[in-house]
Amino acid sequence: MVQVYFDNAATTPLRDDVIKRIAEVMKSQFGNPSSSHSFGRLSKSLVEKSRKTVAKCLNVSAGEIIFTSGGTEANNFILKSAVKDLGVNHIITSRIEHHAVLNTVQQLELDKAIKVSYVNLDANGEVDFNHLEALLQTDAKSLVSLMHINNEIGNILDLKRVSELCKAHQALLHTDAVQSIGHYKLDLEAIAIDFLTASAHKFHGPKGLGFAFIRKNSGIQPLIVGGEQERGLRAGTENVPSIVGLETALILAHDNFETEFQFLKALKGYFIEKLTSEIPNIAFNGHSKDLEKSSPTLLSVRLPMPEDKAAMILFQLDLKGVACSRGSACQSGSSKKSHVLEAILNDEDLQKPSLRFSLSVFNTKEEVDYVVNVLKDLVNV
Amino acid sequence: MVQVYFDNAATTPLRDDVIKRIAEVMKSQFGNPSSSHSFGRLSKSLVEKSRKTVAKCLNVSAGEIIFTSGGTEANNFILKSAVKDLGVNHIITSRIEHHAVLNTVQQLELDKAIKVSYVNLDANGEVDFNHLEALLQTDAKSLVSLMHINNEIGNILDLKRVSELCKAHQALLHTDAVQSIGHYKLDLEAIAIDFLTASAHKFHGPKGLGFAFIRKNSGIQPLIVGGEQERGLRAGTENVPSIVGLETALILAHDNFETEFQFLKALKGYFIEKLTSEIPNIAFNGHSKDLEKSSPTLLSVRLPMPEDKAAMILFQLDLKGVACSRGSACQSGSSKKSHVLEAILNDEDLQKPSLRFSLSVFNTKEEVDYVVNVLKDLVNV
Ligand SMILES: Cc1ncc(COP(=O)(O)O)c(C=O)c1O
Ligand SMILES: Cc1ncc(COP(=O)(O)O)c(C=O)c1O
Repeated sequence: MVQVYFDNAATTPLRDDVIKRIAEVMKSQFGNPSSSHSFGRLSKSLVEKSRKTVAKCLNVSAGEIIFTSGGTEANNFILKSAVKDLGVNHIITSRIEHHAVLNTVQQLELDKAIKVSYVNLDANGEVDFNHLEALLQTDAKSLVSLMHINNEIGNILDLKRVSELCKAHQALLHTDAVQSIGHYKLDLEAIAIDFLTASAHKFHGPKGLGFAFIRKNSGIQPLIVGGEQERGLRAGTENVPSIVGLETALILAHDNFETEFQFLKALKGYFIEKLTSEIPNIAFNGHSKDLEKSSPTLLSVRLPMPEDKAAMILFQLDLKGVACSRGSACQSGSSKKSHVLEAILNDEDLQKPSLRFSLSVFNTKEEVDYVVNVLKDLVNV
Repeated sequence: MVQVYFDNAATTPLRDDVIKRIAEVMKSQFGNPSSSHSFGRLSKSLVEKSRKTVAKCLNVSAGEIIFTSGGTEANNFILKSAVKDLGVNHIITSRIEHHAVLNTVQQLELDKAIKVSYVNLDANGEVDFNHLEALLQTDAKSLVSLMHINNEIGNILDLKRVSELCKAHQALLHTDAVQSIGHYKLDLEAIAIDFLTASAHKFHGPKGLGFAFIRKNSGIQPLIVGGEQERGLRAGTENVPSIVGLETALILAHDNFETEFQFLKALKGYFIEKLTSEIPNIAFNGHSKDLEKSSPTLLSVRLPMPEDKAAMILFQLDLKGVACSRGSACQSGSSKKSHVLEAILNDEDLQKPSLRFSLSVFNTKEEVDYVVNVLKDLVNV
């Protein structure tokens, strides 16, 4: 049976070299990095080398990278500590953030009585910078948390502009870069971000591993306490093989960056072209049709048919071997609408079924042809 | 060079079958378990099968097992939620717990103003049950947190007895079973424990994966929020390959349980015999000399020499290819004394250097001979 995977924003297949490296480390470098003997030192050196690689890719120092069990933990860690330890009592975020940010912020609002402001967005999900500036005009200690690349509509945030506003108003800045690291180059010396979070399984690395970038002398304290691992900022025996796996995936992403970025852009362009010509009146959510303003990995389409006729569409696509999703993976099972689309679409557009196709370098034009054909038939029944 | 690994309480080498299985899952079942398409469902079924296996080993139901990134996270998760969500305002623990428990409890004492009581221990680290009972005589809502097998001296706690005391006094019971799961059979239908924590890398499974057993209807809330994974109790994309790795390691441990347990017991017995005959006046900490009252994986020895002469002993052992430790791995680099030994030894004994040897089924009698010889020479300089 044909199997076509267009759900790379949910998770990506691992690169073979990553799997190989992980298995190697599991086999021959199993020591605990906290142990002082040779087995431990060997593992420690692997972890520290990986930390340096990550730091170099972001143009920061190694001490500013803390490995975590994923993007969700990293978001919880930073946001909760910012409130608990840095005196943040006002978080400015948006309604199209990932639930790892939204639910954390809402929990903090409830438990810690902080103020939460949601920046206005236009119909494309673009941040209203005037509103952001207005929200920053406050005596509260503010932290802005806005994602770099949206995981549903692919919008790329102008982080430089946000960082300058934050700086001008003495606000801290966190960005969830889970959909961006490994697909996009960020220079954190040039952009004054305080905190950034990433996850390996979104760029062909292992699940269960991510990292937090935490700007020097930030005062952040650990979410998980115990041993003194990760410079006292994240207790628990380090997941050495997965850390090396993340490093390997990031190196491969950076080494092949230009080629792969252009490949993805071309593939997405082709996808858009095909959809537009084969399914008249198809529409695109957010900036996802715009190859400059959105990530080449993400395409969110709105089908020209009523929602009720489309109730089974994911199921039917699945029967044809096509894997895609309605919104983020965490919601894909549920009948709930995407909170991202609810935040930006008008009622009429919201009635129409939307689908997210997310691409990786392992996809092909032939797969795009196949999907568009299947989709055309489903729309035309 | 000879390389002898006797630090299995810090971490264990993985079984080959575990590595193989993890690599397989990484290669062919990379889907996100939260995705509704076939890739996702395949991953979901792996996770749920693993959950059932773990539950069966402990004689509990699958819904009571929550996968985490390790033992440390699991301990933080349960202890913090017990205070925040279950109204616990009194934690009874001991001074020989792992730092993942001790530091969490101390943080709760500071941040949440709960009362913390430490149960008295005798010179062997044995819990004073009368004192425990006295501590339970309170109007406070108490939680007892006592580890099943101590990670330094190997003492096995009589969990049944503790659970009965807790039940009689309406206290909750948590046990850190990180050194016990995979080495010891526990039937949680027979023992009324509310919460238990475990970690895969201590029984030849992967690092960065553990689980929490949480008794049904406990009211525990997540430490890490975001998506609805793990029945809403632990957000973040599930680490499918490592979950399957934990399952594989646990199945192998249980299938070979009797043989391996007897092998380890014999090997530890041989180790004790050899040490006693070759190094007169050597002593053993805790119950570690007692093959019934301590785990066959752990041996804590006290050398008949002054501490200053022994300052370099770990370093010298390492030069000879012997990996062991002074206390838990988290402390092995530091010159700090073991908090476990400080809690139970008198001043004179505390002056003498102690070493922890921790065994696994991959160790041999020949390795024991080698270590005892090396140690004898070092003691006699
Ligand atoms: C008794 C005990 N509890 C907790 C832990 C922490 O487990 P993990 O390394 O999986 O976080 C360890 C070992 O590190 C341990 O020995
Ligand atoms: C934008 C974004 N943030 C955070 C996460 C969570 O990352 P993880 O699955 O590593 O916890 C995801 C994906 O799941 C994501 O797309």
